[in-house]
Amino acid sequence: MKEITGGITAAKGFKAASCEAGIKYKDRTDMALIYSTVPCVCAGTFTSNVVKAACVQWDKKIVESGNAMQAVVINSGIANACTGKEGFDACEAVAKAVEKSLGVDHTSVGVASTGVIGMQLPVDKITLGVSKMSESLDESIEAGTAASKAIMTTDTVNKEIAVTFDIDGKEITLGGMSKGSGMIHPNMCTMLAFLSTDLNIEKSLLQEAVKDVVADTFNMITVDGDTSTNDTLLCMANGIAGNDCISIKDNNYETFKEALSYVCTYLAKRMASDGEGATKLFEAKVINAKSKADARTLSRAIVGSNLSKAAIYGCDANFGRFLCAMGYSGAIFDQNDVELFFESVNGKIEVFHMGTPLDFDEDKALQIMKADAVTVLVNMHEGNESATAWGCDLTYDYVKINADYRS
Amino acid sequence: MKEITGGITAAKGFKAASCEAGIKYKDRTDMALIYSTVPCVCAGTFTSNVVKAACVQWDKKIVESGNAMQAVVINSGIANACTGKEGFDACEAVAKAVEKSLGVDHTSVGVASTGVIGMQLPVDKITLGVSKMSESLDESIEAGTAASKAIMTTDTVNKEIAVTFDIDGKEITLGGMSKGSGMIHPNMCTMLAFLSTDLNIEKSLLQEAVKDVVADTFNMITVDGDTSTNDTLLCMANGIAGNDCISIKDNNYETFKEALSYVCTYLAKRMASDGEGATKLFEAKVINAKSKADARTLSRAIVGSNLSKAAIYGCDANFGRFLCAMGYSGAIFDQNDVELFFESVNGKIEVFHMGTPLDFDEDKALQIMKADAVTVLVNMHEGNESATAWGCDLTYDYVKINADYRS
Repeated sequence: MKEITGGITAAKGFKAASCEAGIKYKDRTDMALIYSTVPCVCAGTFTSNVVKAACVQWDKKIVESGNAMQAVVINSGIANACTGKEGFDACEAVAKAVEKSLGVDHTSVGVASTGVIGMQLPVDKITLGVSKMSESLDESIEAGTAASKAIMTTDTVNKEIAVTFDIDGKEITLGGMSKGSGMIHPNMCTMLAFLSTDLNIEKSLLQEAVKDVVADTFNMITVDGDTSTNDTLLCMANGIAGNDCISIKDNNYETFKEALSYVCTYLAKRMASDGEGATKLFEAKVINAKSKADARTLSRAIVGSNLSKAAIYGCDANFGRFLCAMGYSGAIFDQNDVELFFESVNGKIEVFHMGTPLDFDEDKALQIMKADAVTVLVNMHEGNESATAWGCDLTYDYVKINADYRS
Repeated sequence: MKEITGGITAAKGFKAASCEAGIKYKDRTDMALIYSTVPCVCAGTFTSNVVKAACVQWDKKIVESGNAMQAVVINSGIANACTGKEGFDACEAVAKAVEKSLGVDHTSVGVASTGVIGMQLPVDKITLGVSKMSESLDESIEAGTAASKAIMTTDTVNKEIAVTFDIDGKEITLGGMSKGSGMIHPNMCTMLAFLSTDLNIEKSLLQEAVKDVVADTFNMITVDGDTSTNDTLLCMANGIAGNDCISIKDNNYETFKEALSYVCTYLAKRMASDGEGATKLFEAKVINAKSKADARTLSRAIVGSNLSKAAIYGCDANFGRFLCAMGYSGAIFDQNDVELFFESVNGKIEVFHMGTPLDFDEDKALQIMKADAVTVLVNMHEGNESATAWGCDLTYDYVKINADYRS
């Protein structure tokens, strides 16, 4: 596997476009279109929030129906969530605009929105955007990058990646882009993410691979504990690479899953470290837990705790906050079995050992905490299962970004 | 029932003392002692956190054993949590110091600590404090108020209340004090609270009344989603009022429960509005839910969401954040059944009606949001159960208070 330059347009047969539709933002692009020259099998994972945005309901239907997907329209600025029947009608109108412009049946067109909840989409602006973008679709790296920028909201950087790998002598490409900065919390998928590959694979296996990989990547990040109404991950595979169709869980399937995991881990960590107001990546590694579920629960509780996040911002090696978060996570364990370390590029230090606080070197701890990425490593000594979760620190800027009238 | 001036010393037979033990803070009191002239039946509820502080384990044993309780020693500054065997030995040493000074068996002495996790208590300072306080025990209102101040950490105001009520012609007094400002989240009891009454009641009924009342009061407040390792509520009843012992759930029991609910609601709301960095009380009322559990879950999710809390700080009537929080709470509902209102002393406005956003008057909404206490009222239209939860806004100061090195 090799990382290459590019993103959503890296794989053969995928094109992208973006435009300034004027939905909410001024002087920036706010719409993107992803298009495959041939129909794709498509897998998806969606928010677990009971209040699902209209676009989530629309895409879920396509993914679950087994329809091909050939295009996806994305807008930023307005989320099309909590918008009733009018919101659902808007999805249909957007998909039909693609049908009109590109001749793709509207039941093969995904839609995704991100932004303010509770406002209706300006359908006229969006369908106009679709028609403009249909004329500027392009397979260049630049077109992919532009698309990854158009879907940003409070993100400070765009997020894209591409890799190539070999399946039976055929070069396969997998690329992707994502956005997400606030309202990010475990439980699929806490963001918008779009993946495209020229791999030839059966739909059911694509779905299984995506589901497995998301559980250990996108579902392990949290920014603020708020699971969005709009979280969507779509993975389209158009088969143009020409490999024999992957239809069993053989080595080829594992090779793809590895590439998928690499891409999703990269995008997930980029999202965590670009959390609203964040100054650092905050990682929690829990090892030797009784079960995988416990390891996930514990690591997510650590990076999800406001007090832990504030301590990470403050470079404060107050390990009690992390143990406290583990304690209320729901996982059952004995504090007398626990070892806790802080780790970064600046070193590693143990601060809690088998139920007892250690008299550690505070200056050394401070240096470790001052790094741009800080890991809390916890050895549970209760089993063999491990998990890693990612988040970010809680800062003044998080509050500022989310308290409009005061800022 | 009548509210009177006073707190923990209001009921007959209860005395209090406080002192400056120099545990962590400078130039302020940091220890309190509560003492009853006769042994009390005692009820308690404790943190659900798996990582329980040594003092919680100590008190739990007394409450569950059926031992009488006659004194409680409280310190602020250090939490005695995550402190291993040494921490538990410290509890015993403190209780034995009371035995030595006041002749109360150490198995009838409760201990409670609040402050930094992961540090050992300075036992010498604390036992010296016990011996000083034993000599200054006093039944005055002032002694109670001083005790309520000594147990504060990041609290900005002390919290105490007392009421009297009549049982079969006898005047009963119930008083209490609490502290709690950060690391406050539902699941018993998210703080330290001490209640004292001269009522004569059976231990099992006292425990039942406390458990029921806590579920709708202290367990319905949240400041930051972090359930502490030290949460403790102790309610001592010494019987000095001389009523016939309450041993069945008769009208007298209900009268007591009503007073208990009044006292606990007051203390819980005071704690929520004094949340770390808070500028306002944030209340969520969920009515007509399918079940009591759903109503509690939904209302707590609303006041617990960082995005909701930041919106309240920003006076932003962005109702989508509240619906979003309800959606990921775990309760199942149909957004098309939901009505959502904002309410305060400045008025009431509906912003979301049966699945559809309303075109509401934003100026009016802003005026409503600007009040010192703001309520989100949600009508689920799915049943007959209701619940109210309390929290506070998320502000720059919350981050500042919890990110030491940066502030």
